[in-house]
Amino acid sequence: MKRRVIECVPNFSEGRNRDTIHALANAVREVAGVRLVDMSADPDHHRTVLTFLGEPEAVAEAAFRCAHAAIQRIDLRQHRGVHPRIGAVDVMPFIPLRGVSMTECAELARQVGYRIAGQLEVPVYFYEQSALPGKPSDLPTLRRGGFEKWVGQMLTGSRAPDAGPNTLHPTAGAVIVGARGPLIAFNINLNTARVEVAQAIARTIRQERAHTPELRGVRALGLLLESRGVAQVSLNLTQPDQSPLWWVFEYVRTLAAREGVEVLETELIGVAPAAAVAGAAARYLRNQALDEERILELWLDTEWNP
Amino acid sequence: MKRRVIECVPNFSEGRNRDTIHALANAVREVAGVRLVDMSADPDHHRTVLTFLGEPEAVAEAAFRCAHAAIQRIDLRQHRGVHPRIGAVDVMPFIPLRGVSMTECAELARQVGYRIAGQLEVPVYFYEQSALPGKPSDLPTLRRGGFEKWVGQMLTGSRAPDAGPNTLHPTAGAVIVGARGPLIAFNINLNTARVEVAQAIARTIRQERAHTPELRGVRALGLLLESRGVAQVSLNLTQPDQSPLWWVFEYVRTLAAREGVEVLETELIGVAPAAAVAGAAARYLRNQALDEERILELWLDTEWNP
Repeated sequence: MKRRVIECVPNFSEGRNRDTIHALANAVREVAGVRLVDMSADPDHHRTVLTFLGEPEAVAEAAFRCAHAAIQRIDLRQHRGVHPRIGAVDVMPFIPLRGVSMTECAELARQVGYRIAGQLEVPVYFYEQSALPGKPSDLPTLRRGGFEKWVGQMLTGSRAPDAGPNTLHPTAGAVIVGARGPLIAFNINLNTARVEVAQAIARTIRQERAHTPELRGVRALGLLLESRGVAQVSLNLTQPDQSPLWWVFEYVRTLAAREGVEVLETELIGVAPAAAVAGAAARYLRNQALDEERILELWLDTEWNP
Repeated sequence: MKRRVIECVPNFSEGRNRDTIHALANAVREVAGVRLVDMSADPDHHRTVLTFLGEPEAVAEAAFRCAHAAIQRIDLRQHRGVHPRIGAVDVMPFIPLRGVSMTECAELARQVGYRIAGQLEVPVYFYEQSALPGKPSDLPTLRRGGFEKWVGQMLTGSRAPDAGPNTLHPTAGAVIVGARGPLIAFNINLNTARVEVAQAIARTIRQERAHTPELRGVRALGLLLESRGVAQVSLNLTQPDQSPLWWVFEYVRTLAAREGVEVLETELIGVAPAAAVAGAAARYLRNQALDEERILELWLDTEWNP
């Protein structure tokens, strides 16, 4: 009998202060039954993404603890970054990986949300599969306006939180919590400082996705990484089965080339499904049969003949 | 406590007769405690490679059974193929994957060899980590001359088998059995029928490997796939940690390009370590941080925090 596993990938609005970043990671590391698998801090985004997984109850506990550490330490009044955000714990997705249904995972995410709202006095919105009936469920809508627009306002009507106080926490804003399927967070850095090139590519993706199946679940932003003078197309592939990683890379590379711009490098935040990694390798090696079933280690814990 | 796992990757001298190929695969599938993960049959090589893994004793049993089926059915007197071979079961490597030492695996391979020799009356050579003291251990030496050279001869001196009769089996030749580390079997097909291009590339690899670390464990042959009019560089990366798959691909691609020849496609036989697949994806995506630790599924069965 295999262990039940869920993943949590919280995004925090702090990508520079090492003490704070380590405190977030340590809050996860001190919980038995979870494993921190990635910690990606970006000074320009001014964000940190933790990726951890484990037994559902342990992941819920670790999620609460790192949210607690973030809300104590991060002050959004001091925070400037290129990435949109509304909270110190900006978004906290839970992903069912094995032996856990989406419904169970959505309920567990809500429980974490109610605990954050109740114990830490921060308004909480439930998103994606955890959204309550009749409420908005998508991240861009819930985050629209950001911390600065809503701080000090009464959160009513469509902006009313699903749990917690009716005003943003004065330093920590709000938390958006929910269950969703796996996504790939993938940034493509261009060899130009002209952010308008990245913005135009992101706009093209948003325009084309209505009639391009490979782009349907792709969210795109054009950003400037100021510390490096690098324009970035920041992508979320929310339907990785529909959007091969290599295909999206090739699409952006081609659009950039039309502007005389090249891909400098890419960044993967957290982890990606084996199929996406194998697909990119297959493309490089001109090997149509190369898929995740060609990866030796993935067979070690499969079922044997009865 | 995780299951102990070994892998077996026997190469059979039959790549055309579907009944025979299915009989080999079924001999593996009927054994409890193993899993057949790949079956690659090539009509030009006139070879089939099975890849299966599981509990050591179950893998040993499945190995004996598919060797038995091959020795009953394959007649080397009728066999012509482009790949060198000395037996119906030409080579039968065992690879320790988890919880099994190389020494244990080498001993288990010898037990299978003694059983094949004793029950099926076929001479057996032990190779690689199973080689006996003072005897040759490498596959090219043991296979040199092939079935046609040795059939009907007394096998004495350095050609004396390690077990079984002192003459080749009249239809099944000999079996080369042993334990080794994981390797990557990788073929690069060129868009030319000129086999001399593939042969020259293979020769360059053999010449350069003495002073090129990435080529040190690479075995290369240039072959013609007659049925398709395609020249092939057939490669074994016997030290995959030292020879990145993408690097070897790039090396062959560059040598071919100098002759005005392109890579048509590649073939992976069996499975490859995640590091090799991730490395090729990293190269394609220009992502230096992309390695096997970025593959989500590989974390599912790791240890959690205590």
